[in-house]
Amino acid sequence: MRIGIIGASGAVGREMIQVLEEENIPVEELRLFASERSLGKCLPFHGFKIPLQVVKEGCFDGLDVVLGACSASLSKQYAKDIVNAGAVFIDNSSAFRLDRDVPLIVPEINGEDAKGHHGIISNPNCSTIITCMAVNAIKKLSPITGMIVSTYQAVSGAGAKGIDELKEEISALEKGEAIQPDVFPYQIAYNCIPAIGNEECEGYTSEEMKMENEGRKILHLPELNVSCTCVRVPVMRSHSISVSLATQNPLTLEEIREAILREPHVQLLDDYDAKVYPMPLTSSNQNDVLIGRLRYDRVLPNGIALFCCGDQIRKGAALNAVQIIKCL
Amino acid sequence: MRIGIIGASGAVGREMIQVLEEENIPVEELRLFASERSLGKCLPFHGFKIPLQVVKEGCFDGLDVVLGACSASLSKQYAKDIVNAGAVFIDNSSAFRLDRDVPLIVPEINGEDAKGHHGIISNPNCSTIITCMAVNAIKKLSPITGMIVSTYQAVSGAGAKGIDELKEEISALEKGEAIQPDVFPYQIAYNCIPAIGNEECEGYTSEEMKMENEGRKILHLPELNVSCTCVRVPVMRSHSISVSLATQNPLTLEEIREAILREPHVQLLDDYDAKVYPMPLTSSNQNDVLIGRLRYDRVLPNGIALFCCGDQIRKGAALNAVQIIKCL
Repeated sequence: MRIGIIGASGAVGREMIQVLEEENIPVEELRLFASERSLGKCLPFHGFKIPLQVVKEGCFDGLDVVLGACSASLSKQYAKDIVNAGAVFIDNSSAFRLDRDVPLIVPEINGEDAKGHHGIISNPNCSTIITCMAVNAIKKLSPITGMIVSTYQAVSGAGAKGIDELKEEISALEKGEAIQPDVFPYQIAYNCIPAIGNEECEGYTSEEMKMENEGRKILHLPELNVSCTCVRVPVMRSHSISVSLATQNPLTLEEIREAILREPHVQLLDDYDAKVYPMPLTSSNQNDVLIGRLRYDRVLPNGIALFCCGDQIRKGAALNAVQIIKCL
Repeated sequence: MRIGIIGASGAVGREMIQVLEEENIPVEELRLFASERSLGKCLPFHGFKIPLQVVKEGCFDGLDVVLGACSASLSKQYAKDIVNAGAVFIDNSSAFRLDRDVPLIVPEINGEDAKGHHGIISNPNCSTIITCMAVNAIKKLSPITGMIVSTYQAVSGAGAKGIDELKEEISALEKGEAIQPDVFPYQIAYNCIPAIGNEECEGYTSEEMKMENEGRKILHLPELNVSCTCVRVPVMRSHSISVSLATQNPLTLEEIREAILREPHVQLLDDYDAKVYPMPLTSSNQNDVLIGRLRYDRVLPNGIALFCCGDQIRKGAALNAVQIIKCL
């Protein structure tokens, strides 16, 4: 396969290169696109140094797949050229996720949907992928009617510069120096910021509405209502999500546990007394989504509560995108 | 008033001394009790140095009030002596909170209940105080029937040693040294730990069940169901809580906003576009509970969602205890 990556030098782009290696995708050619700032730099792939190039006319010619790890506006700008060049565009941005003729894919859940693409396939929002992976076993037992979700999102959700900002703040505080937040609206070191994305819908943010809008499409639950609160926490990598959900039919924890154990790419870590539960530190750099703290919700009808963690750069972005290549 | 403080050298005990000063409690005598390790040390109060002493026979004689900032087991050990000495025991531990003849008080909510005491008054759990303060205005408009709650709890919830452990871990990581968690079950630096307290009830922890059991008693809502997920986050001070609640009667956001503005000791910080929302960094060392991200919940019947923050050493512990003195 001939593969291109747009935004190759960012946190997600670099991870895509690594995952292409790990997942043994037969890559005949790899073209890495980045901004002018990166011209002259190279990135390693299977022992070779691949030079970074800028997007220009004809640069997508001959490619089979282009992975997008850039902003939504750049994705919109390049999509036509990619499709006209005959490549499939697997886009990690939010640009096309809700378009009716663009499949929105988590391969373990709705990989079949990828076959209906018209040149563009969207990779879902990171927290949404992790949450959908965690509840998919339950959804197979009964339709989910509602989810109430609070997130604990790592700084790397804002890219490599998010990690840098947290590190710089921690070291500035050690030295007693002043802090100048840039990536995040306020100091994130030793803080929680309940604000990710812009205000979009009746007090919910763009990031929070993704959980409902994208969750409906991925899980094939067009009536699913989701109340989501997205919070940035001073964690480097891996998002955590506290989930309460209501199902149409009553389920037992026993059958849910068995169903989770049957699912690929999720792990049930659920033994409180033995200190076994998901944490962002243990899910970082892991491909699997970790599920634990499974119990009956005490408020929702047929309610189930759980806590899950997943590496949002891996399963929440790069790994999921590379898995989509395998669906094709 | 003649006041004693048990556990005076801990994070909550020290804050109690400071709050006694700030709230202008007319203190004629202050006796500070701590463990043998603290013998020979003093703590400042209104410019005086008060020596720390250990608890021994007759040490509570002549006191009007004893504030407890010690473990539940020590509270149980000393309670009888305190009451027999004629003092009122205002206990911050969980020892007596659910006892039928012990009032559990948040002065702004159920201060009247304090009058029915028989020598012991309990100070509620920190996250429960903050959450109850945040929802009390709503409860005045309509009974609350259920709450789904996820917490973001600061390390100082585990006392001064929790703060020390986070600081030590951050500096060990900077130096590339190994980490030995002691206060928390795992590394808390750059991590979230969904485990506070012991497993108690059908998969819910002791800390999580406090939100239901104590919330029912404080809010006078004996039927209230609460699903709570308690998570420790790498924040020094001040707990945050994401709350979704269902009310018996439908309410508008407008009337809720007006009701919150009428409440004492809470602040409505709710203007997303202007970057106005509660954060633990801004609620630290503040007496008020901050409320924001107010919106309709999309799942619960008559549902309301909000995010709140409060300093759990101040309103969540020391300030609330000192306010209880004023109720008497």
